[in-house]
Amino acid sequence: MADVFPAVASPLRPPDRQGAMRTAARMAESALAVEGVATGNREFGDWYAGRVREDVAEVRRIALAELSGWHSEPGTGNLVHDSGRFFSVEGLAAEYVDGGARGWEQPVIRQPEIGILGLVAREFGGVLHFLMQAKNEPGNHNGVQLSPTVQATRSNYSRVHRGASVPYLEFFQRPERHRVLADSLQSEQGSWFAGKRNRNIVVEVAEEFEAGESFRWLTLGQIHRLLAEDDVINMDARSVLACLPFGGADASVTAPTAVLRSCADGTGAVHSTGEVLSWLAGLRAGSDLSVRRVPLDGVRGWKRTEESVAHEDGRFFRVIGVDVRASGREVRQWTQPLIEPVAQGVVAFLVAEIGGVVHALVNARTQAGLIDKVELAPTVQCVPSNYAQAPGAPQLRFLDEVLGAPAERVLFDSRLSEEGGRFHHAVNRYLIVDWHGDHRIEDDTFRWVALHQLAGLLRHGHYLNIEARSLVACLHSLAGGRRATGTGEEAPAR
Amino acid sequence: MADVFPAVASPLRPPDRQGAMRTAARMAESALAVEGVATGNREFGDWYAGRVREDVAEVRRIALAELSGWHSEPGTGNLVHDSGRFFSVEGLAAEYVDGGARGWEQPVIRQPEIGILGLVAREFGGVLHFLMQAKNEPGNHNGVQLSPTVQATRSNYSRVHRGASVPYLEFFQRPERHRVLADSLQSEQGSWFAGKRNRNIVVEVAEEFEAGESFRWLTLGQIHRLLAEDDVINMDARSVLACLPFGGADASVTAPTAVLRSCADGTGAVHSTGEVLSWLAGLRAGSDLSVRRVPLDGVRGWKRTEESVAHEDGRFFRVIGVDVRASGREVRQWTQPLIEPVAQGVVAFLVAEIGGVVHALVNARTQAGLIDKVELAPTVQCVPSNYAQAPGAPQLRFLDEVLGAPAERVLFDSRLSEEGGRFHHAVNRYLIVDWHGDHRIEDDTFRWVALHQLAGLLRHGHYLNIEARSLVACLHSLAGGRRATGTGEEAPAR
Repeated sequence: MADVFPAVASPLRPPDRQGAMRTAARMAESALAVEGVATGNREFGDWYAGRVREDVAEVRRIALAELSGWHSEPGTGNLVHDSGRFFSVEGLAAEYVDGGARGWEQPVIRQPEIGILGLVAREFGGVLHFLMQAKNEPGNHNGVQLSPTVQATRSNYSRVHRGASVPYLEFFQRPERHRVLADSLQSEQGSWFAGKRNRNIVVEVAEEFEAGESFRWLTLGQIHRLLAEDDVINMDARSVLACLPFGGADASVTAPTAVLRSCADGTGAVHSTGEVLSWLAGLRAGSDLSVRRVPLDGVRGWKRTEESVAHEDGRFFRVIGVDVRASGREVRQWTQPLIEPVAQGVVAFLVAEIGGVVHALVNARTQAGLIDKVELAPTVQCVPSNYAQAPGAPQLRFLDEVLGAPAERVLFDSRLSEEGGRFHHAVNRYLIVDWHGDHRIEDDTFRWVALHQLAGLLRHGHYLNIEARSLVACLHSLAGGRRATGTGEEAPAR
Repeated sequence: MADVFPAVASPLRPPDRQGAMRTAARMAESALAVEGVATGNREFGDWYAGRVREDVAEVRRIALAELSGWHSEPGTGNLVHDSGRFFSVEGLAAEYVDGGARGWEQPVIRQPEIGILGLVAREFGGVLHFLMQAKNEPGNHNGVQLSPTVQATRSNYSRVHRGASVPYLEFFQRPERHRVLADSLQSEQGSWFAGKRNRNIVVEVAEEFEAGESFRWLTLGQIHRLLAEDDVINMDARSVLACLPFGGADASVTAPTAVLRSCADGTGAVHSTGEVLSWLAGLRAGSDLSVRRVPLDGVRGWKRTEESVAHEDGRFFRVIGVDVRASGREVRQWTQPLIEPVAQGVVAFLVAEIGGVVHALVNARTQAGLIDKVELAPTVQCVPSNYAQAPGAPQLRFLDEVLGAPAERVLFDSRLSEEGGRFHHAVNRYLIVDWHGDHRIEDDTFRWVALHQLAGLLRHGHYLNIEARSLVACLHSLAGGRRATGTGEEAPAR
């Protein structure tokens, strides 16, 4: 028992605020380091090109009926793994208690296990570096992308599929032995998953060790440059990067850029954090959306064939099967279901410097697959073609402002992929647009929230959805004061 | 749209920290006011005695089959209201993924609507007072207790049962028009409810209005004295009182007592808040408890008769029916199911002043009915007789230390009731015991957490369970530096 209690001379840790300020300063320093101590940009480029050449997977579309190791559960038609583990594809019915016919049904991925998205940090030359992994996922349209150090489901790391062990997992199994920089359970796509969450965790280690062939140490500045490129930093990496403790610095700390200054919580905000929390509590309490599981075979509005499960109007997404033959992965051949969206989406923040503090316009959005139903989402998060026949749909609010913004207002513009282990060629255009108009554009579900408030909320689960977390990582990438729109910015060579 | 945006000269609210410090100082001031400006202690005593005389209910036990307005759902036997609203009694199956036979089944109350526990605050003579309601609930063994200003389910306030309207509800329907002191969704009994939560909200209003006959304004000091008495402050009141913003004061603020000093977050703690959050994230991610709904009729280990649903060994609780004839309630006669525990429980915190800061020993406890499965619970939370045949049961950890503590170490000791609208004569003995031994008694599921950390966590949901929140309210009642063990302390006359 006594061994888990810290053996310190003083019985107390210093006030949280002191530690938070120090840590935020180190984050800023790493973000401003655009060349690495551990891995030079040129060396990174050569290595990444090598991984792309060597880590190749052949992904072939197959009929759902051809999936091996998976079966349709008798009675429901749910797609389940023969081991009962990993995930299943089933149906979800969403109903409004008082809403008459407004409900809907859809297929959904159920993955009750909480996996690990783990990032290892270490100082090189006094600057924090992060151990990134080059990883090929079957749903990635471009093969290899950069993931966190560890990206593993419980079935994965408890060896259900008898693959190789997960490298560096040990750092996250006893994180209290290291310095924990971030650790929270965060939701994933509420439109495609039922209640899925992952543990987003960053530990700083002191010990030296050899980085494996698929791994390289990068500064935040290096990672941020790569975020500006299309499809390099994968979703899991963005999710955990967003949780890095940027917030907490004092306003008095000299910060060279607006983004870093706005991470200091001594600066105020349009709404107090209490007001933001109260607004969200009210929307959650007032939501009358009720969600229940239904059999995949009976999902209203969707059509199941041997090949796939698809929406009757061809909108939203399809459930498909793939056969994967990979080199460089722990298992060499397998089949699995994937969700394939029918078109590319747009995910965007309008941001504004208000009273000298950068705020993002967040949308409190109800999504049937979220445990707490309402989380803070980007200003815009939609697949426009799904609403082509409904131009006034609420999902399209602010879409014109984002897509029609003049080039000089576009601070970030990259095409980034969603999780390639569950989604096939799911790509969104991620945008950050500087809003120069009157900032009084809030309504019941939109609020301006300061960057330091987002950082504070990200210490906890249930607040920022995965798309918003991706954008927070993109926002932090502007810490160097450079725009990142793929228009000729210098980036680590590839 | 523009009307919900605050019309202020400066676009920014001041830093959260400034507001939090001011608010915490006002909480402390109210806690130290043991005599009221709005309602004197003598006046309170007369009024309360009057409410007890006048607000009388006759509660008669009836068979489940005699419930009117309720029926057993065909196929499942679940007890549901004819309107489909309020709540239902159904079955829950809890299973451990890797745990073989360790699972169990039980009846459970499902109440998916999020109700309101709302407390109105207002200054009288410069001191904050809170509007408490004298309310008779059918499960209260002593009839009238003090509840928050508003205690209402959505079915309740949306008039499903066509009763009178809920007084003061309007303050919580547009709280942003007032000063919101606390607002979060908090869980309730994870052993008896499936995923139940209420919105715990406190608003400070500026306007004068007449308090209705069932309502009186009391200072925190007055409420704290009443907490020391058995069965006066009801569970819903304790829950929302716990959420009051005691934390946030600076360490430099002169605080006269250890409890108030320990609410200042500049003081440090045995574990940083980041460490506490990481510990909890790890336990949640590692939990392999899986919960699903099952029909009430088939719950394994429980026996249903015309009269009740009871455990085969007579342990835990029974589901019973009651017929209520009340004066002074919005509906005069009704029947409903209630959960009746078989014996009195013990709910206790061990507390210790470590490095000058008061800490409570919290237990990260898995409960099948909690949405996030693991929340921070009291050091001890059990009904000892349920484990009479299993003296080494983990539920009994620290029970001997609590019950065997010498009188001078017992800082708080009251018998308090759980929610009388759902539970019949559910009473726990609430204890706070000063631990003077070596504080290195933590193990994997126990941690010392400072009072200011508990206050910080209580701004959010999913952290402190209802029993721990009750004890936090009891802890705050020690802010005046007095022990509260019902042993001759002066209290407002009754």
